[in-house]
Amino acid sequence: MGWSVRRRPDAALATALASSDGIGDQSRLLPTGRLEAFSDGVFAIAITLLVLELHVPGRGEVLVRSLEHEWPRYLAYVVSFAFIGGVWIAHSNMTRFIKAADPALMRLNLTLLLFVSLLPFTTAIAATHLFASFLAFDDHGGGPGLAERVAAVVFGLNLTLAALLVYRVIRHAARTPGIAADDLAEEELQAFARDRRAAAQLQAGATAVGVFFPVIATVFYLAVSVLFLVEPLRHLNLRRRRAAEPGPGR
Amino acid sequence: MGWSVRRRPDAALATALASSDGIGDQSRLLPTGRLEAFSDGVFAIAITLLVLELHVPGRGEVLVRSLEHEWPRYLAYVVSFAFIGGVWIAHSNMTRFIKAADPALMRLNLTLLLFVSLLPFTTAIAATHLFASFLAFDDHGGGPGLAERVAAVVFGLNLTLAALLVYRVIRHAARTPGIAADDLAEEELQAFARDRRAAAQLQAGATAVGVFFPVIATVFYLAVSVLFLVEPLRHLNLRRRRAAEPGPGR
Amino acid sequence: MGWSVRRRPDAALATALASSDGIGDQSRLLPTGRLEAFSDGVFAIAITLLVLELHVPGRGEVLVRSLEHEWPRYLAYVVSFAFIGGVWIAHSNMTRFIKAADPALMRLNLTLLLFVSLLPFTTAIAATHLFASFLAFDDHGGGPGLAERVAAVVFGLNLTLAALLVYRVIRHAARTPGIAADDLAEEELQAFARDRRAAAQLQAGATAVGVFFPVIATVFYLAVSVLFLVEPLRHLNLRRRRAAEPGPGR
Amino acid sequence: MGWSVRRRPDAALATALASSDGIGDQSRLLPTGRLEAFSDGVFAIAITLLVLELHVPGRGEVLVRSLEHEWPRYLAYVVSFAFIGGVWIAHSNMTRFIKAADPALMRLNLTLLLFVSLLPFTTAIAATHLFASFLAFDDHGGGPGLAERVAAVVFGLNLTLAALLVYRVIRHAARTPGIAADDLAEEELQAFARDRRAAAQLQAGATAVGVFFPVIATVFYLAVSVLFLVEPLRHLNLRRRRAAEPGPGR
Repeated sequence: MGWSVRRRPDAALATALASSDGIGDQSRLLPTGRLEAFSDGVFAIAITLLVLELHVPGRGEVLVRSLEHEWPRYLAYVVSFAFIGGVWIAHSNMTRFIKAADPALMRLNLTLLLFVSLLPFTTAIAATHLFASFLAFDDHGGGPGLAERVAAVVFGLNLTLAALLVYRVIRHAARTPGIAADDLAEEELQAFARDRRAAAQLQAGATAVGVFFPVIATVFYLAVSVLFLVEPLRHLNLRRRRAAEPGPGR
Repeated sequence: MGWSVRRRPDAALATALASSDGIGDQSRLLPTGRLEAFSDGVFAIAITLLVLELHVPGRGEVLVRSLEHEWPRYLAYVVSFAFIGGVWIAHSNMTRFIKAADPALMRLNLTLLLFVSLLPFTTAIAATHLFASFLAFDDHGGGPGLAERVAAVVFGLNLTLAALLVYRVIRHAARTPGIAADDLAEEELQAFARDRRAAAQLQAGATAVGVFFPVIATVFYLAVSVLFLVEPLRHLNLRRRRAAEPGPGR
Repeated sequence: MGWSVRRRPDAALATALASSDGIGDQSRLLPTGRLEAFSDGVFAIAITLLVLELHVPGRGEVLVRSLEHEWPRYLAYVVSFAFIGGVWIAHSNMTRFIKAADPALMRLNLTLLLFVSLLPFTTAIAATHLFASFLAFDDHGGGPGLAERVAAVVFGLNLTLAALLVYRVIRHAARTPGIAADDLAEEELQAFARDRRAAAQLQAGATAVGVFFPVIATVFYLAVSVLFLVEPLRHLNLRRRRAAEPGPGR
Repeated sequence: MGWSVRRRPDAALATALASSDGIGDQSRLLPTGRLEAFSDGVFAIAITLLVLELHVPGRGEVLVRSLEHEWPRYLAYVVSFAFIGGVWIAHSNMTRFIKAADPALMRLNLTLLLFVSLLPFTTAIAATHLFASFLAFDDHGGGPGLAERVAAVVFGLNLTLAALLVYRVIRHAARTPGIAADDLAEEELQAFARDRRAAAQLQAGATAVGVFFPVIATVFYLAVSVLFLVEPLRHLNLRRRRAAEPGPGR
């Protein structure tokens, strides 16, 4: 942030502009400093606002029983915390491999932030309605009710759209000339984008399951969120393997 | 942030001070690092706090019907998200072209942040009152009521004042000696300020329409917000075109 | 933030440590990057959370009348926004003149952040109770009631303690060897600390007035907050004047 | 953040990769810039959200009496503010001594942030239930009730888990090759980890006391939080002493 952040990109842009030949792809590139700062801010706030949906039992209620009945809230909290944490790790991993942003990347990123900042809302919907039939005081009788199916699908759709945007942001960075730091970084981003496409597909599948089996789908959401958290750094091995390999490379 | 951020501006200031001739415009310049960090913080928080105004239907309510009736909230959420996103893109685009801030810029920027941080409040007013006559359970009879007109104007005024301050901040940066990074950057800021003045005028016009046709005005707000989001990077072509042009330049 | 931020302070600290002669003042110095980032975060959040205390009139209420009756909330909002904005400007102005932090500075700064982050709470107390006797629907009869006096003093004490800590933080930076960037910066910080002491004394005086005349005191709070916002950059002239002066200087 | 932050780590990574011999520990290292930014964001938000649990007495209530009865909330607020402040100081002290992060450190750090961001919730539980038997209007009769014991243990467990994770994060940084900035930094981190293990053990002991004497335990929590705040910088003397010592060193 500040001087070093602003000045050096300007220098880089000035160089790019000096060599501008009228095609102009380079001249639309922007520094990534504020993209990272603003995204970190939204991720940090969204992940911390989740706590506001946990209800503090009042003085008149029996504390222990209340805390027991609130377990779906705690579960939904952990799902969304793990999911946003995983998106943040993926995002900060992506920005390592890029040297600039273009306007389309900033708008795709803003759309990703839209779905991330919606999560405290859809998490609360899931926490309130998804596990209702499991709770003794709110038994609907046979099978999941409409509210549970809707809650599972709304929550799952939000997670799917956020996962899809993570994929789209990374794919855009991989495909657009001048964004990746170098050729090897471009290859990293392409491999990373494939990983993220698989994650978005998994999440979409789990959401489709949610129409019929809302609670099983939610277990899938948790699994996919943890996968998101653990996976995004796996492909780093690619670079190592390639560096160790003899031969022409790419 | 930190060492590199603080030390280099000091060096730049020291140079400026060494050549200070008593006019002293240079000696009032400040580094932009914390201006960017604080602004990013406020933008990120304001855009994320919007979600707190989305209501989670309680257990007793019918989830599907509730979500259907809440569409004005979702619309208002998207309008304000797009607007703040657009202001953030414009702001981060502006800071690319400046190398320092002066006290007046910091105060103008703080006033911009005041109107941005008010948006979660006026968005909630619009969401609660603006579309009331469209909702079956709250039909006022013929034409928009007073509450709708007031809500449309309050929301529109907030958007207009924020858009006006974006223009004022950029105009100040363009006109004040020593703020723009170089002559070309000054020209960019002037072109950018003209774009933002048009956006503020459009928003003011839409707000005036809101006195008579509150819902049509809100569609205009959405259109202007999306314009804000898509436009601010268009003028980058200016620099490219000028670089490609032969001749004396500026 | 990150590499450049962390590595260079380490280098500076390593140098300081290499020349450590056992007195060890230098070896307790810390880089300022995260001090600035964390402070910016708390300032940005506190200033944005103020909006949560503005009440959105529900559907059943008459919007216009409600908005009229809420003016004390808007006034208190503006007072606290101006105050936090002024503290932020003072804080970012101070960090320009320091090159390191010591543990005591970090703890003093944390205490400042405590009082800043309390402001959304005491602002709400003032907004709810301070102007009650001015509102038609809540007239207590002759003179300010106990609630108004308490609200004025609680709000004023919070502002006074925050202003006092701003002074203490800057004074500590001015007096502790190794914190100021250079001798001129140390002198700047001393002049700045004197300004801030005056501001804290003014705020304390206004709070004392609040015991007897709560509403007049609040007008004083507003005036002092605006002073905070406008003043902290005045002393920059000092450096300029001194640079322009011939003679031995300091 | 931005250019300098991203580019230099890449350079460092490129160097690490060029010398990669197939063992590959170095190639999994990540820059720390966004780890610091995201952590600062979560710490700043969690510490500021605490204020939302302080209740503003409504117009109908007697202000003075309400403020008196709310003292347990203020006490819990101060405990959690001091605790999060201490965790932040410890965290920013740790990042001074590291030059990179690995995936495991990012996940451990995310788990630490999970427990820190839960604190506004468990603080509210403690504030609501822990001191209930001290308050005239809510006297349970002889000895602490179940709710008080549960509240003390829930709050204490959260503090213990957060303290434990601070220790685990620092220990991981101390033990994993390639994370510490140099050998002396590694030694600092080891000494620091020992301090943090003691703090976590103290906090765990205080929580065990909470089962029997909830209020005494809370006084312990306060003491441990203040210790956290004051202690983490003590070990800096180690480096100084060692630098002053003649002889072979490490």
